[in-house]
Amino acid sequence: MKTPTYKDIESAYKKIKQFTIKTPLLESDEFNQEIGSRVLIKAECLQKTGSFKFRGALNSILNIEKSKLKDGIICYSSGNHAQAVAYVSKILGLESTVVMPATAPEMKVEKARSYGGKVIIHQGDRESMEFYTNELALKTKSTLIKPFDDFNVIAGQGTVGIEIAEQTKKRKIDINSVLVPCSGGGLTAGIAIALSEKIPNASIHPVEPKGYEDTALSLKYGKIIHNSKLRKSICDALLVPKPGKLTFNINKKYISKGLVISDQSTKKAMSLAYKYFKIVLEPGGAISLAAAINKDLNLHNKTIVVVASGGNVDEKIFSSAILNN
Amino acid sequence: MKTPTYKDIESAYKKIKQFTIKTPLLESDEFNQEIGSRVLIKAECLQKTGSFKFRGALNSILNIEKSKLKDGIICYSSGNHAQAVAYVSKILGLESTVVMPATAPEMKVEKARSYGGKVIIHQGDRESMEFYTNELALKTKSTLIKPFDDFNVIAGQGTVGIEIAEQTKKRKIDINSVLVPCSGGGLTAGIAIALSEKIPNASIHPVEPKGYEDTALSLKYGKIIHNSKLRKSICDALLVPKPGKLTFNINKKYISKGLVISDQSTKKAMSLAYKYFKIVLEPGGAISLAAAINKDLNLHNKTIVVVASGGNVDEKIFSSAILNN
Repeated sequence: MKTPTYKDIESAYKKIKQFTIKTPLLESDEFNQEIGSRVLIKAECLQKTGSFKFRGALNSILNIEKSKLKDGIICYSSGNHAQAVAYVSKILGLESTVVMPATAPEMKVEKARSYGGKVIIHQGDRESMEFYTNELALKTKSTLIKPFDDFNVIAGQGTVGIEIAEQTKKRKIDINSVLVPCSGGGLTAGIAIALSEKIPNASIHPVEPKGYEDTALSLKYGKIIHNSKLRKSICDALLVPKPGKLTFNINKKYISKGLVISDQSTKKAMSLAYKYFKIVLEPGGAISLAAAINKDLNLHNKTIVVVASGGNVDEKIFSSAILNN
Repeated sequence: MKTPTYKDIESAYKKIKQFTIKTPLLESDEFNQEIGSRVLIKAECLQKTGSFKFRGALNSILNIEKSKLKDGIICYSSGNHAQAVAYVSKILGLESTVVMPATAPEMKVEKARSYGGKVIIHQGDRESMEFYTNELALKTKSTLIKPFDDFNVIAGQGTVGIEIAEQTKKRKIDINSVLVPCSGGGLTAGIAIALSEKIPNASIHPVEPKGYEDTALSLKYGKIIHNSKLRKSICDALLVPKPGKLTFNINKKYISKGLVISDQSTKKAMSLAYKYFKIVLEPGGAISLAAAINKDLNLHNKTIVVVASGGNVDEKIFSSAILNN
């Protein structure tokens, strides 16, 4: 397995930056004072398609020869990667098919459709969805863009790390830790490679919902461990059974202890993001902010970058989070 | 009445930029396609204290000799200026008293208090609140920071215009119009002065809620006109009886037709900002986005900057807007 290097992430950034938004690093002095740390939110909810997934999907598709894409693009995704793939396909004039689980939020399904994606709702678990999509890709000769376990996807997500390094350098901020929402580990791996070059002293922590702490456990035991898949979680974007092979190979080299967060803490973090930062975060995008407040790590007096990875959340869930927390 | 020039806004920017956030200019290709114009949102909801008011309050207070401030700062405000004054006072180590109407949103009152402001809730209309605050300032020898009709406040708000010019220049975007939420006219006036220098061909339009279109009417008739003050509006930040003398003098020179928006359109715009831009806008901050969609001006195929001035909104109002629109 070939692993992206810092140079690959730089190349990705050159390719995609004309299309992506350099999302701001937000800060609230009052929030800092309240929690006793300095928190900088990398607001990827403000990225095109409402999540960081646009970066990886764009880099991945731009790295494939156009002649090979004539039968279209296909992907499986809980929702954000689906939107990104459909949107990239649209701007490049390609056909796309996106396979999503029956549990995907309405907003994600609706937006993938609005970008021209042919949405197939899959009944069944994550593994059967992957299997189904692979079969369909073979049958239709369309090109599969994987959600995380892919060289160019990881390099694309790593551009978040390049921007964090640039933005903190410009503002002369020394950061101690970076907290990253973690599903298959692509965003974490990309950021880890970028920061191992640019801010090697910062610790990178993946953040997962309770019941889906496969990366935390895999890091702890030094090998890939599956979730038991029995629990439910509000974090629809983070419900994968196990880390990717490529992503885990990278992450075990570069990153620190995984953090595990309850849904209740995530809802509270959505409410804090509303109140202090005026941004809309979906549960999986707010989980890293929840981790910054939790006492699992001693972050007191530390400077932390919180990657807020997405903001595609149904109105009912968002309203409930801000009204009840 | 001395009027700020572009140079004064530049000086203000030099003074305040180390404390303020250069708020992003957000764009959504899908939103553009849906409405048939190119919309760039200047997201001042992401500014410190959750609104642009921080810029003007900071510039105003930094321009007063510290020895003159020993008896503290005082202001009257529907809420955003109150928060800004309380917050600036806090970071400069000064006492502040903020007089707010009984109708001010809970979040605004609570945050002004959390910044250390001594909040006085005033029962009565806007004019009696101003009168009361002026009397109290004389009695306590504290320094009054007016919400809009003030040289240094206008110069501070004008820094939004400098950033719009810089950001659009950097991205090589030619803008046709700028839509600005308008209460007393300070933000509009500051932006108008800045852009008359930097993007003189762009038309600047103030946007007001129905029933509070005092600036639109004053512009139309060439003299200051009061509202009848009979209506209610969801736009708590924009409910002043008439334009300021200084602000109107500036605005009548530089700006174009005022736009008037219904509360229903404003609620819809809050929902669109949630869905497409992932930002939290209060009603008075979303009214300019509503104006971009309205058919009052022919904005089809035009490039428009929408100033989204603030995001301090109670959870119930925000939830209701996104759930019902």
